[in-house]
Amino acid sequence: MIVEEMVSALPLESVNCAGVRWSEGESTDVSEDIAAEVPVALVYNGISHVVMLATPLDLEAFGVGFSLSEGIVASASEVHDVEAVAVDGGIEVRMTIASERFVALKERRRNLAGRTGCGLCGTESLQHAIRDLSQVPEGPRVAPAALHRAFAGLPAHQHLFKRTGAVHAAGWSRPDGALELACEDVGRHNALDKLIGSMAMEGHAFDAGFAVITSRASSEMVQKAATVGIRILAAISAPTELAIRLAEQSNLTLVGFARNARHVAYAHGKRLVP
Amino acid sequence: MIVEEMVSALPLESVNCAGVRWSEGESTDVSEDIAAEVPVALVYNGISHVVMLATPLDLEAFGVGFSLSEGIVASASEVHDVEAVAVDGGIEVRMTIASERFVALKERRRNLAGRTGCGLCGTESLQHAIRDLSQVPEGPRVAPAALHRAFAGLPAHQHLFKRTGAVHAAGWSRPDGALELACEDVGRHNALDKLIGSMAMEGHAFDAGFAVITSRASSEMVQKAATVGIRILAAISAPTELAIRLAEQSNLTLVGFARNARHVAYAHGKRLVP
Repeated sequence: MIVEEMVSALPLESVNCAGVRWSEGESTDVSEDIAAEVPVALVYNGISHVVMLATPLDLEAFGVGFSLSEGIVASASEVHDVEAVAVDGGIEVRMTIASERFVALKERRRNLAGRTGCGLCGTESLQHAIRDLSQVPEGPRVAPAALHRAFAGLPAHQHLFKRTGAVHAAGWSRPDGALELACEDVGRHNALDKLIGSMAMEGHAFDAGFAVITSRASSEMVQKAATVGIRILAAISAPTELAIRLAEQSNLTLVGFARNARHVAYAHGKRLVP
Repeated sequence: MIVEEMVSALPLESVNCAGVRWSEGESTDVSEDIAAEVPVALVYNGISHVVMLATPLDLEAFGVGFSLSEGIVASASEVHDVEAVAVDGGIEVRMTIASERFVALKERRRNLAGRTGCGLCGTESLQHAIRDLSQVPEGPRVAPAALHRAFAGLPAHQHLFKRTGAVHAAGWSRPDGALELACEDVGRHNALDKLIGSMAMEGHAFDAGFAVITSRASSEMVQKAATVGIRILAAISAPTELAIRLAEQSNLTLVGFARNARHVAYAHGKRLVP
């Protein structure tokens, strides 16, 4: 039996590590801030559901956001409590969810689609790989200039990236391009989940404004966004074809290559109106 | 019952999609090559093991490489045959592995660590999140200039990236920096698995030369590399602290920020000798 040892504090989000830098034919001993990557177990009503590697920041928001974006709960109020606890081997995000949701989760676990940024590990059959998505409602209208303003404002929120160069960010912008908040994580999908959780815990809806991400727009980013009703998802980098297809199906505006005051709308560009 | 429909051809690795590009205050209809992202099931001896989103290129190599890097088989010869087949909902990579390996896999599935680029979905408990790694053997010695030469040569191999801007590459270089091959995928870990599989299927060992990747160096990249005996893993972008720790433990040379004729050695820099 493995006894989990309670540790008092969560690990830091970055750690100083020694390295040897080589440049211009010369080597130098350096000491750098390196992003932590910690196994984080999401635990529902005492049962460990899934483990993901994540940055130990905003983990309560991560738990709530994952629960929402994966459809485990329908609103943040169904997560009765959430607590991040350092244990032997990593961190547990312990949540108590409404009992009918827990029953549904146990049922669903038999065919779990443990979706991640890069894969679908945990999914055993192709039939469960892609979830059916409902349509997100209409609105808002956003000017391209506002979209570009939001991306221009994002670096000021990327505190951990500035130190480590290793983490993604997901931010939420008002329709005028003013960034309201941003979350960081080594995993792009975790950053989005943290954003979703932070918004939901503060009672913000997803009907006004839009989400910006520093990564590519892959299918699971669209699935998570559409599940919680985000209308516009804009990525700095490229989309995949499956992401475009899912965005088309779910009435979500998908934007890629949003950089240098440019962007390309790949699905439902109707919400981008100068 | 879901009947899988055999489709004759695999999906293409990229698809032409329409978009609206906004630049300098003007919008233009565009048509772009977009990277495909397809659910791929890895099927062992008729049993579906895991589904991942991947680029439909080099899928036989992907299957063999995943089997090796996840320790499902110990050598490519234990994969008796491998075939990528388009089915309803995605692609199946059907493999037949040695029966003792299949028995071990079934046993292991009860505590499956379905490791991915961004998370550990499928892993339910923290105790299974990080595998024990053995030590990779010593050698080779590589000059920093050779490392830089390999990265300088990588773009010429990134055919799909050139068209889509959406995929990672993993390459194998000789000790002198001459790139021997490179593989591409929307997932960084899939690109590395394809490289590993391609090498193994052609009978190449990992004792001479080194691996280069266009992504960050996260923990699962180190785990996969160390499992097959890669001695040096060099990434264009940042490492995580867990990746450094695992590299230290497994005697693997881990290099980050390898770009513009620079790099930083974070673990076992002893193999980098001018």
